[in-house]
Amino acid sequence: MRKVSGVMVGLIGGGECDAETAKQAREVGEGIAREGAALVCGGLFGVMAAACQGAREAGGVTIGLLPGADRKEANPHVTVSIATGMGYARNYAIVNTADVLIAIGGGHGTLSEIGFALKAGKKVIGLNTWQIEGMVRADSPAQAVEFALQAVDANT
Amino acid sequence: MRKVSGVMVGLIGGGECDAETAKQAREVGEGIAREGAALVCGGLFGVMAAACQGAREAGGVTIGLLPGADRKEANPHVTVSIATGMGYARNYAIVNTADVLIAIGGGHGTLSEIGFALKAGKKVIGLNTWQIEGMVRADSPAQAVEFALQAVDANT
Amino acid sequence: MRKVSGVMVGLIGGGECDAETAKQAREVGEGIAREGAALVCGGLFGVMAAACQGAREAGGVTIGLLPGADRKEANPHVTVSIATGMGYARNYAIVNTADVLIAIGGGHGTLSEIGFALKAGKKVIGLNTWQIEGMVRADSPAQAVEFALQAVDANT
Amino acid sequence: MRKVSGVMVGLIGGGECDAETAKQAREVGEGIAREGAALVCGGLFGVMAAACQGAREAGGVTIGLLPGADRKEANPHVTVSIATGMGYARNYAIVNTADVLIAIGGGHGTLSEIGFALKAGKKVIGLNTWQIEGMVRADSPAQAVEFALQAVDANT
Repeated sequence: MRKVSGVMVGLIGGGECDAETAKQAREVGEGIAREGAALVCGGLFGVMAAACQGAREAGGVTIGLLPGADRKEANPHVTVSIATGMGYARNYAIVNTADVLIAIGGGHGTLSEIGFALKAGKKVIGLNTWQIEGMVRADSPAQAVEFALQAVDANT
Repeated sequence: MRKVSGVMVGLIGGGECDAETAKQAREVGEGIAREGAALVCGGLFGVMAAACQGAREAGGVTIGLLPGADRKEANPHVTVSIATGMGYARNYAIVNTADVLIAIGGGHGTLSEIGFALKAGKKVIGLNTWQIEGMVRADSPAQAVEFALQAVDANT
Repeated sequence: MRKVSGVMVGLIGGGECDAETAKQAREVGEGIAREGAALVCGGLFGVMAAACQGAREAGGVTIGLLPGADRKEANPHVTVSIATGMGYARNYAIVNTADVLIAIGGGHGTLSEIGFALKAGKKVIGLNTWQIEGMVRADSPAQAVEFALQAVDANT
Repeated sequence: MRKVSGVMVGLIGGGECDAETAKQAREVGEGIAREGAALVCGGLFGVMAAACQGAREAGGVTIGLLPGADRKEANPHVTVSIATGMGYARNYAIVNTADVLIAIGGGHGTLSEIGFALKAGKKVIGLNTWQIEGMVRADSPAQAVEFALQAVDANT
């Protein structure tokens, strides 16, 4: 398996989600970790927790940038939690930190991150989410991870 | 003419725009000022400057929340410029400050603000912009202002 | 009386204060407004509210950059309230927006703002507050305002 | 040696420093890592880089919260770099993330972090730095680390 050193994949998705979306997020997290990339997200629950769980089960590193000022608010699958205390302005830091982003599910916070990412010229892979011009649509968790890593390779 | 005391309308749109979009933005700015509302925006150029110009010509107050740390970066039609120094994280402050938002044109920064606004449960009126579920579509500058003020009335 | 057009004086001080400090803050606010400068502060209570009250009574403009996401949290003497939603990170925006700063009283948030201001190379006038190398000490509200306006003049 | 699981020590200090201060910072970083704590800092050079180097040489984890939007601006001893893109507002996130802070050297950014930390009720150990009421003074790198870990223990 190809190993990517130092790549950070931004995982964006809502703080609540249904079981099917959580399953997809978990598979995406697992795929990111298997590729040797770190996962950076908002550190909370729903899509974020599911993806972090998948990544952790595959031995990966998960970074959570929290809106609040208390590190303990992170989901239990975050290995490095950052308490920004800056509310959802932290979405901007997630986008700046990520080399590429995968969006899962349809939240409005996710939409703000898609906007920031496209503005910054970063690729956003979408799985079962908003379809915004400029995003790349994936049809499965495996494909989302594949497209994300390809986008990073193309940039380096 | 009805006067709205203390209402702030968020005006979101790109830093560059074509002449037709600028004309629309200017009319929206004028309408906001005529209704007695203040306009809050990102303080830069394109849609923002056009809307501020319209508001100023109608005697209104325009507030610009700049991404940079230098107040002089504001367009010349801003009456109160705030230099956040926090980059596009300032989009979050624009949304929090506004009672209702009008989006004009199709930039990605605008999309981030639409996401933040819908997440915060604020109404977003769209004129010639992204069509995101939950937004209210206006067909003219006058209608955009009308819908925005109605949304504020409904909330108070 | 000399009129300063477009100058913004940052007024930094704690959210709680004793009556004597409040009296000083009120006189400083009044002096800022009499000089034709706008006052920018954190928008909350204590020193900030007293200074805003003084400025308003002298017909001035007061801008409050709030930590929270609700504009209604501002003290009643703020004319333009900005709800940043970014917690005390908003201290950085106050410093960036101000041309010069006056610190009153001894809070720790005030200390963070003094640090940001000195780092940005801005003059900080201190009245009954921290004595940090690089600050200018004033012995009365009138002198604090005088020193602040002199610092702006020297810069322009 | 006692191992602290999950503790994050905030290391605050200027982006430039003399050789003696760098030596102290390196020893503090080494001590933090030896105690099994992670180091969180601003990710840049001077005191921050020296402390990160010391921590890395002792096998520790170093987290850098950068002011800029480009992760590559981190010093080479940062293991997890976060590009906030929010300028020095990131100082607030460093303080929120840390369980306790060690300040080294006399910069003004450091002063802003001391202010934020004391406001948040967090202990700040000072080594060759500002002497602000409420801080704990250490006379050596070893003592700074010792006092920091004691402060965390007292809190848990």
